[in-house]
Amino acid sequence: MPPHQTPGPGCKKSVDLIIFAAHVIPVVPRNVVLANHAIVINDSRILALLPQNEAQKLYIGTVERHLPNHIVTPGLVNLHTHSAMTLLRGLSDDKPLHDWLTQDIWPTESAFVSPDFVKVGMTLAVAEMLRGGTTCCNDMYFFPDQICEVLETTGFRGAVGQIVMEFPGPYGSGPDDYLIKAKPNLEKFAPGCHDLITVTMAPHAPYTVSDKNLQRADAIAKEHEARMHIHLHETENECVDSEKLNRKSMTCHQSDQNLRPLANLKRMGLLSDRLICAHMTQLTTEEMKDIASAGAHVVHCPSSNLKLASGIAPITAMLECGVNVGIGTDGAASNNSLDMFGEMKLAAILAKAQTLKSFSVPAVEALQMATLNGARALGLEKDIGSIEVGKRADIIAIECDSIEMIPMYNAISHIVYVAGREHVSDVWINGKHLLANHKLTTIDEKLLKENVLKWTAKICAHREQHSHFVKE
Amino acid sequence: MPPHQTPGPGCKKSVDLIIFAAHVIPVVPRNVVLANHAIVINDSRILALLPQNEAQKLYIGTVERHLPNHIVTPGLVNLHTHSAMTLLRGLSDDKPLHDWLTQDIWPTESAFVSPDFVKVGMTLAVAEMLRGGTTCCNDMYFFPDQICEVLETTGFRGAVGQIVMEFPGPYGSGPDDYLIKAKPNLEKFAPGCHDLITVTMAPHAPYTVSDKNLQRADAIAKEHEARMHIHLHETENECVDSEKLNRKSMTCHQSDQNLRPLANLKRMGLLSDRLICAHMTQLTTEEMKDIASAGAHVVHCPSSNLKLASGIAPITAMLECGVNVGIGTDGAASNNSLDMFGEMKLAAILAKAQTLKSFSVPAVEALQMATLNGARALGLEKDIGSIEVGKRADIIAIECDSIEMIPMYNAISHIVYVAGREHVSDVWINGKHLLANHKLTTIDEKLLKENVLKWTAKICAHREQHSHFVKE
Repeated sequence: MPPHQTPGPGCKKSVDLIIFAAHVIPVVPRNVVLANHAIVINDSRILALLPQNEAQKLYIGTVERHLPNHIVTPGLVNLHTHSAMTLLRGLSDDKPLHDWLTQDIWPTESAFVSPDFVKVGMTLAVAEMLRGGTTCCNDMYFFPDQICEVLETTGFRGAVGQIVMEFPGPYGSGPDDYLIKAKPNLEKFAPGCHDLITVTMAPHAPYTVSDKNLQRADAIAKEHEARMHIHLHETENECVDSEKLNRKSMTCHQSDQNLRPLANLKRMGLLSDRLICAHMTQLTTEEMKDIASAGAHVVHCPSSNLKLASGIAPITAMLECGVNVGIGTDGAASNNSLDMFGEMKLAAILAKAQTLKSFSVPAVEALQMATLNGARALGLEKDIGSIEVGKRADIIAIECDSIEMIPMYNAISHIVYVAGREHVSDVWINGKHLLANHKLTTIDEKLLKENVLKWTAKICAHREQHSHFVKE
Repeated sequence: MPPHQTPGPGCKKSVDLIIFAAHVIPVVPRNVVLANHAIVINDSRILALLPQNEAQKLYIGTVERHLPNHIVTPGLVNLHTHSAMTLLRGLSDDKPLHDWLTQDIWPTESAFVSPDFVKVGMTLAVAEMLRGGTTCCNDMYFFPDQICEVLETTGFRGAVGQIVMEFPGPYGSGPDDYLIKAKPNLEKFAPGCHDLITVTMAPHAPYTVSDKNLQRADAIAKEHEARMHIHLHETENECVDSEKLNRKSMTCHQSDQNLRPLANLKRMGLLSDRLICAHMTQLTTEEMKDIASAGAHVVHCPSSNLKLASGIAPITAMLECGVNVGIGTDGAASNNSLDMFGEMKLAAILAKAQTLKSFSVPAVEALQMATLNGARALGLEKDIGSIEVGKRADIIAIECDSIEMIPMYNAISHIVYVAGREHVSDVWINGKHLLANHKLTTIDEKLLKENVLKWTAKICAHREQHSHFVKE
């Protein structure tokens, strides 16, 4: 039935779900708020987006959800995180980066990271992200099989990184092992094969992966049409030490080239539209142009970059150069939360102080970065990132009637500058209701908390034996 | 009865309230977390702070509140806000400061600000602040009588600014009128006269108040032992234009001196321990030393300073110079919320990127800024800002068992880097339970929301007639 032909009585098309919302921000087209619209969903995808009275004439939903005090937007895409590190949330803070890593994070990871650690930490992360309006994450951590398992059982969408490092770790004996382990998931979750999961190659960083293995990872990614997800230009030291080949520094790249890491990736042909670069606090104008013309993607992680004293990524300049910039929380050990609403606001306001222009990165841009740009980076822009007919129904609802949310003059700026993640009431992924009036539907919260407490007890006992941890 | 003498059976001292908490952060002494302690409260003040088992032997509370999954801290002090501007929350965003003020904020204020506007806006602000763990604000706005009335009816603590400007406005015909209007409140709410309210002289800024009237305001403040609350060095333009006497600029001070505004205040003898300077994004090392040796106070408003592209106040350097730095949200028209948890985290992480040192402004410092330093600035450090025997019982409880709050390794860093204001479950001011398990006890939420909606409707109707507003 054509969408604008009114059917006779009893001829309404039956669909899985209709969401009736006071305000819909579709993200595409940009800067639009639709009042009193309905999103019609069938078979996990958006079938129609139209005024409520028209929807009521044309469709009948198996489930109909009325959201009279809500803003509805696409689900947020957390474009860089290490989900399972939620179990290390707040383990160590306010320390120089080197001490933080070598004294606290790495020793704890080598003592504890295991399939069960990842499963529990990933479930905690998915619970936190769902409750905060995030519907997709781009993850990089060990034991990707457990990460995929959690995504399937919870119904959460993710791009799962197949980690590559030069060194052995809890998940593999070295680069050959990591590369071998990557292949089954790359095949199983090739583009279009699964309705939730895609896979990326995730070489950790130029200072932990050799040129040879970066190239091997990229060749595998190319063969499987997968993205490359890497930490890049996170700190000034990484750039300076790599260019000077200062081998004494932990952040010097593993190459023999006197080059900044991005230039070295470009030299090797790795700067492409498949590359997702997390952090990028240090960039020259030439580098931004290189990224833009290659069609590579950047993840802005403002809280993590501030907290670890890495700097402030020049996102206004990047956006002006045409770079696709998304937003990520980084892991909960360096943020210390997976709160994409917090990151959106911070991205928008930090850009203004950086440029000394209060109109830099307006709300509409920040929201697009946290949704559509993230989807683009992952190669999922045909499926998610906006509320458009034909896309997957990854949708969130934000309550607007609490004390903190009134009054409201502009729904888009409200989402970015006023709303907190606690205002997210409902979340759908593939049209499945995963957060229903603030309650998780696919995660047993009580069991999850028990499992988190078990891990915390073990980590605390270990911590007691290591005097460098701050004691309460 | 001496506190450490165990009474016989039946001899327990009867008190108003005992709070039993899993974790108490008293702020004084610094960097301490007390496990399983009790706070004993009588006649609005803290009578004892001791282990729970000792408290149970010595005291019996008319009310006893058990918080087994909570962190308890002093209430937060919002050291700079324009509370009633909650009614303009999100009215205008992402515009250059001049356009934001002259096209949107000022015309709306002159059309609408009235005693009822202030009463409703102030009540909304108090509701928001209470729900978010703030127990005291340093306010600057029009119609202070209405602000005092709201403080009394809600039980909220406030330092109420008596505004002074060179120009007529909705509250007064000019500086003489403002100064005359200040006196009754300065007398009624002189230090020690009221258990909730104190009064400050609040000359708006050097670019809106002449030297003569700044001096008159200060003389009145001195006579009444009141603080002076002023916007100062908010932007680079304010400093540069004042020093150059660039009269064409809106932010040039009203003085005839070629001086930066702080130097001009110093010249007039106004730089004293009674001065509370909001913003201060622009400061030389000499100026910081001047502020420190005068014992003046600075309010860091990080969200507002970023959002309005004013810059980043050099708080690490100020703290190193010995300046007392507190934290404020500014008004909801430029933030757009009154969320002191957000400001604490932002203050702590922004300082690290500013200094490129990840140990700058550690969590313990940020928490002290948001509590004790705010109390000191207001001259209330003997009464509030920490959980110490003899102080007023201004206390908040933060739930630690939600998905977003687990695991927890360090309660102090958890408060700053992990907790959101939505985790505040209980608030007491003067020992009175104003937020009880997330419910406001002295504010009728339904009535408040109706009143807010009435004002919003009026403002929206006015906005419709002014095409420069962004339309949805």
